[in-house]
Amino acid sequence: MSDFRDLKQKCYEANMKLPELQLVIYTFGNVSAADRKRGVFAIKPSGVAYDVLKADDIVIVDFDNNIIEGSMRPSSDTKTHAFLYKHWKEIGGICHTHSTYSVSWAQAQRDIPIMGTTHADYLTHDIPCAAPMSDELIKGDYEYNTGQQIVDCFAERKLDYKEVEMVLIGNHGPFTWGKDAAKAVFNSKLLEELARMAYITLSINPDAPRLKDALIEKHYQRKHGKDAYYGQK
Amino acid sequence: MSDFRDLKQKCYEANMKLPELQLVIYTFGNVSAADRKRGVFAIKPSGVAYDVLKADDIVIVDFDNNIIEGSMRPSSDTKTHAFLYKHWKEIGGICHTHSTYSVSWAQAQRDIPIMGTTHADYLTHDIPCAAPMSDELIKGDYEYNTGQQIVDCFAERKLDYKEVEMVLIGNHGPFTWGKDAAKAVFNSKLLEELARMAYITLSINPDAPRLKDALIEKHYQRKHGKDAYYGQK
Amino acid sequence: MSDFRDLKQKCYEANMKLPELQLVIYTFGNVSAADRKRGVFAIKPSGVAYDVLKADDIVIVDFDNNIIEGSMRPSSDTKTHAFLYKHWKEIGGICHTHSTYSVSWAQAQRDIPIMGTTHADYLTHDIPCAAPMSDELIKGDYEYNTGQQIVDCFAERKLDYKEVEMVLIGNHGPFTWGKDAAKAVFNSKLLEELARMAYITLSINPDAPRLKDALIEKHYQRKHGKDAYYGQK
Amino acid sequence: MSDFRDLKQKCYEANMKLPELQLVIYTFGNVSAADRKRGVFAIKPSGVAYDVLKADDIVIVDFDNNIIEGSMRPSSDTKTHAFLYKHWKEIGGICHTHSTYSVSWAQAQRDIPIMGTTHADYLTHDIPCAAPMSDELIKGDYEYNTGQQIVDCFAERKLDYKEVEMVLIGNHGPFTWGKDAAKAVFNSKLLEELARMAYITLSINPDAPRLKDALIEKHYQRKHGKDAYYGQK
Repeated sequence: MSDFRDLKQKCYEANMKLPELQLVIYTFGNVSAADRKRGVFAIKPSGVAYDVLKADDIVIVDFDNNIIEGSMRPSSDTKTHAFLYKHWKEIGGICHTHSTYSVSWAQAQRDIPIMGTTHADYLTHDIPCAAPMSDELIKGDYEYNTGQQIVDCFAERKLDYKEVEMVLIGNHGPFTWGKDAAKAVFNSKLLEELARMAYITLSINPDAPRLKDALIEKHYQRKHGKDAYYGQK
Repeated sequence: MSDFRDLKQKCYEANMKLPELQLVIYTFGNVSAADRKRGVFAIKPSGVAYDVLKADDIVIVDFDNNIIEGSMRPSSDTKTHAFLYKHWKEIGGICHTHSTYSVSWAQAQRDIPIMGTTHADYLTHDIPCAAPMSDELIKGDYEYNTGQQIVDCFAERKLDYKEVEMVLIGNHGPFTWGKDAAKAVFNSKLLEELARMAYITLSINPDAPRLKDALIEKHYQRKHGKDAYYGQK
Repeated sequence: MSDFRDLKQKCYEANMKLPELQLVIYTFGNVSAADRKRGVFAIKPSGVAYDVLKADDIVIVDFDNNIIEGSMRPSSDTKTHAFLYKHWKEIGGICHTHSTYSVSWAQAQRDIPIMGTTHADYLTHDIPCAAPMSDELIKGDYEYNTGQQIVDCFAERKLDYKEVEMVLIGNHGPFTWGKDAAKAVFNSKLLEELARMAYITLSINPDAPRLKDALIEKHYQRKHGKDAYYGQK
Repeated sequence: MSDFRDLKQKCYEANMKLPELQLVIYTFGNVSAADRKRGVFAIKPSGVAYDVLKADDIVIVDFDNNIIEGSMRPSSDTKTHAFLYKHWKEIGGICHTHSTYSVSWAQAQRDIPIMGTTHADYLTHDIPCAAPMSDELIKGDYEYNTGQQIVDCFAERKLDYKEVEMVLIGNHGPFTWGKDAAKAVFNSKLLEELARMAYITLSINPDAPRLKDALIEKHYQRKHGKDAYYGQK
């Protein structure tokens, strides 16, 4: 029996949330779950439809993209996951989808502005849309470079990956992450809803302002600050 | 056994309507139910997901925001509920959500204009969007001040809370209320549908006019006037 | 036992299609079914929610709006139904909803232009939006006058109610009809879908043209002309 | 017993996917499945609603539009299917729907631009919208000419039907195809989602650019090129 049974199961369950939350159709997404102690992550196999996916199909890969266990090919986006796990030491799960509103903002090549407290409850910045990759990098090691593109985008904008757990890749779609795979999936659903609300808001009022700083600060701090009073102790 | 078992159950059932009516995902909302005779209300605990919420988790609070019964923290919006119950003597239920179209109008900082009889069947005014709070008030007792913000908005616009049972808080989202918790939830669903229709209407025709006064009056009176003939006796 | 048991059942089943087809929430609609031989129609009682409605609750009314059988108040729109049955001799069912896209076009006070074969498969004209009623008529016998408003709109535009089985009442919403109640409900769903497609079409291309005459004619005739070849013999 | 039992069953199952995938209401679509060796295809009967359709109702037709087996009339679009099977030798299934977003683009008479990798994962070109037919052809053998219209559109634009498996007929709606009926249905769902994303993208940013060539090439090749690494071997 596999040494990674629990990790595979956790990864499988997080993947199965995607169709349930209406974030994917067919094979349009993948979730991975890391085990930091063992230096590996579990990831969905490539091109397998959600309605036939089994926990046993999940592939185990290390942070340098070597397959450790599994008879199937891992997701074609595996190198991007590996890159992010290697560079950002405190994330335990990554989620990638082609959900409708998030992809639409990525295709529009626009950051999603912070416009309300629904957004500020979870993050204090606009959701960044990374500029499309240079042709040279696309022709190189594309999925590895997608990881680089994300990390560079955060460095350039001075964003902390522990505070902003999501990004749009211009012309492609969203990647989200978090302390574990379940949190990464939550962030994908949150992002999709924020993307939808921002789209409707700007259709109603193209001049709708960003949320004022005092409200950004207040909502984030009551949930995540040292004196947070949201949720249970 | 709790003295508030029935009140908790009623509050629990009203809360569970929110995901069923597609008004919330995750923890994005809360409903309270008041018992005026005993001077208390029941409210959802903070940060508990709807799929694990139980009637026993509901917290009992008085109108000065003191916890009367319950081992969990009440909703982070509890002070807003308490404020409204204290100032508006005839309401028995309050509902707060982050539903998509209502939040989008709140983020657009626009009142929802009365554009048709669907709206006039229930209220004769535009749905007010309260201006965002001053920085000073945000840094003060924020949730208490949100209650104040709602009451002030109604005073300023000369609106009667028994006629207009809903408000948008600019950049935040909707609060609705009514004679009991079930009516407050009904009003949240109604508001969401009115918000969606008004958005589509103005996309089709940006110059679409407000409903004429005679129709506003007619539809409201046939349902709520002294000679109302809508519904059963 | 009621003499109208079958008619009530038919009316009940047609009404229950409305929530199933996502055309109504709560009490936002009503369907009637006529028995031309007996000069009566069955209609939903006023203000009764769909999830508690029973076939026995259905009310029997004649074409002059007299209640023939039933202990509940009929729909507040009953006079409109009676008027249409009285003036248009060949309709056997009427449906009224507040479905989202149809109401939005009614609020925008715009006819729905014929833009594609989905529309031409069923009717060869734009879907008319009747101008809002005069204040005088609103203050008079409002629901009776709504029937008059529909019949006048068709006379003015030289439309045949057997060819165009639907109308939007400006600022209110859709009425549809047909040979029986099931056809009237079908027409409400068709209208809602045509309204949605026309809205999206004009958002993509504000200058999208009406369907050319040859295609209007072709699609309608292949389905409804004397040499029709659509459907089974 | 029918010699075509398996083919009918395959065709039936592909048809039943359409309501499940929310691509059709009522009778608004049809799928056919070809048996190249026997020179026939199975197709949905005309005007039969999906909720009463049975595998036995499926009609068998040859590529010159002669009915080979079946007691019901085949789809009114059968000549279009026959034309495509006759001219494009390597397709094994065809699907036609009136799905909302695809029809809206067809009504807007606009090609759907390639704007992201969701699109490039499956095809490297804009999705063509064929210009409406001339009045002369409409009055002639309409459904046969619809087939001609599709083939001409591809010839004129130098598109390969094996690379671009979908088309919009101006003012009408989408036709899709593929190696078998299941692939044709998949392509209809894919097209609907691409149509929806492109609509939202251009609403957010009317100047959103087409996807750059290097990304089009990269995404298509990693999935379909000779060194493809997407999916299982």
